[in-house]
Amino acid sequence: MAARLKLIIAYDGTPFSGWQSQANGDGIQDIIEAAFGRIAGTRLRIHGSGRTDAGVHALGQCAHVDVADRRLTPNEWRAALNSNLPQVVRVLRCSYVPCEFHARFSAVSKTYRYRVWNGEILPPLEHLRCWHIPRPLDFGVMHAAADLMVGRHDFAAFAASRGKAEGSTLRTMESAGWSKRGKLLTFEITGDGFLYKMVRLIAGAAVRVGTGKLSPESVAAMLAGRVRPQRFVAPASGLYLVRVRY
Amino acid sequence: MAARLKLIIAYDGTPFSGWQSQANGDGIQDIIEAAFGRIAGTRLRIHGSGRTDAGVHALGQCAHVDVADRRLTPNEWRAALNSNLPQVVRVLRCSYVPCEFHARFSAVSKTYRYRVWNGEILPPLEHLRCWHIPRPLDFGVMHAAADLMVGRHDFAAFAASRGKAEGSTLRTMESAGWSKRGKLLTFEITGDGFLYKMVRLIAGAAVRVGTGKLSPESVAAMLAGRVRPQRFVAPASGLYLVRVRY
Repeated sequence: MAARLKLIIAYDGTPFSGWQSQANGDGIQDIIEAAFGRIAGTRLRIHGSGRTDAGVHALGQCAHVDVADRRLTPNEWRAALNSNLPQVVRVLRCSYVPCEFHARFSAVSKTYRYRVWNGEILPPLEHLRCWHIPRPLDFGVMHAAADLMVGRHDFAAFAASRGKAEGSTLRTMESAGWSKRGKLLTFEITGDGFLYKMVRLIAGAAVRVGTGKLSPESVAAMLAGRVRPQRFVAPASGLYLVRVRY
Repeated sequence: MAARLKLIIAYDGTPFSGWQSQANGDGIQDIIEAAFGRIAGTRLRIHGSGRTDAGVHALGQCAHVDVADRRLTPNEWRAALNSNLPQVVRVLRCSYVPCEFHARFSAVSKTYRYRVWNGEILPPLEHLRCWHIPRPLDFGVMHAAADLMVGRHDFAAFAASRGKAEGSTLRTMESAGWSKRGKLLTFEITGDGFLYKMVRLIAGAAVRVGTGKLSPESVAAMLAGRVRPQRFVAPASGLYLVRVRY
């Protein structure tokens, strides 16, 4: 009897064209489907909680897949998948879930992290894992701008065009804030849904606020739809999908 | 008038054949000498504090180089070098030093770090930055074995053959110990000098102690030269040259 398997997946986004299946097969989804193909003997379709762009990392992406039966335990699935995946894609946990569970539609909230290195020199081991901003940033004002995001807002000003075609741009943010450890500034945001490139547009606005190129008042006006938005997309490599809650 | 420049350098060791110049030019030393060549118009020879093997990382390698004059300030050298180096090799600091300074011979002590991931799954972003040990490790007994290293000892049992040909194997360790944060175990050792592969052989022994395959008493006997050493080299990718003191 068919069974639905839930996967928690981590990946280094650097070598891939993003989550979504690609014609050339280098989407992370393709890599995982190919691993299922080698284990199950037939290609299975996996469904992610959402796409991540090329270069975006995941600490806890979630996906589901329907397998033919429960012959393998969740831990056996995990071991079989990991031995068929590259080291930079790991299945952290597997579990059987009711067939009503859907990785995308059952998601209640998602948490993203965006990392900024605010120092003159980017440490080599942070290359492709941070956005490097050598100019001084005003951390206090960035924090104030982040506070504006919390609550229910129309995030149209913080969506790339693909998002706008997808219906409502109203989303609720449970929390949003920056923390600092030495030269590393980390933004974390949790909400019930995110528009296309939304976190990178928020991070881009935050850095412009931090360098004094944008005022928190302008951010508030963009959020209220009172001004034509100035969109500034932060690089993909600083973004991490941290977790999906159900 | 010629001047001696001291460099503090960080690198991700993954894409290189190690510090030392290679015939094919992919030693980190070659990469830096090529950058000097582009800036100074003539190839300059740089002298490191010591070699690091292929895959070993550095947070603070030190090197010196003799330049023709002081026309560039240390910060101008740093900026010029960094714009001629790949992102995974960064000059963190530059300074002019007296010509008696020698990156290798003036070094008083070095600190190395070795990172072990002790969990079932290695997070993708730790790939090539940790040694992955999925089996449980007894952290207490590893710490006890590290304590044995402190002080003046003959480290012949913790040296690969190249080291033995280089004279005395007596070295003094100022400190050595493990720390733990979640699944990440970090070993840090500071001493007046290190034999070839010494830190990796100590880390290898520590992990064998942690899994119960080697007793701290055997480590003590190896250190005292009372038994034929069992050499077990930990992978290069977990090793970091942290700093060199002068």
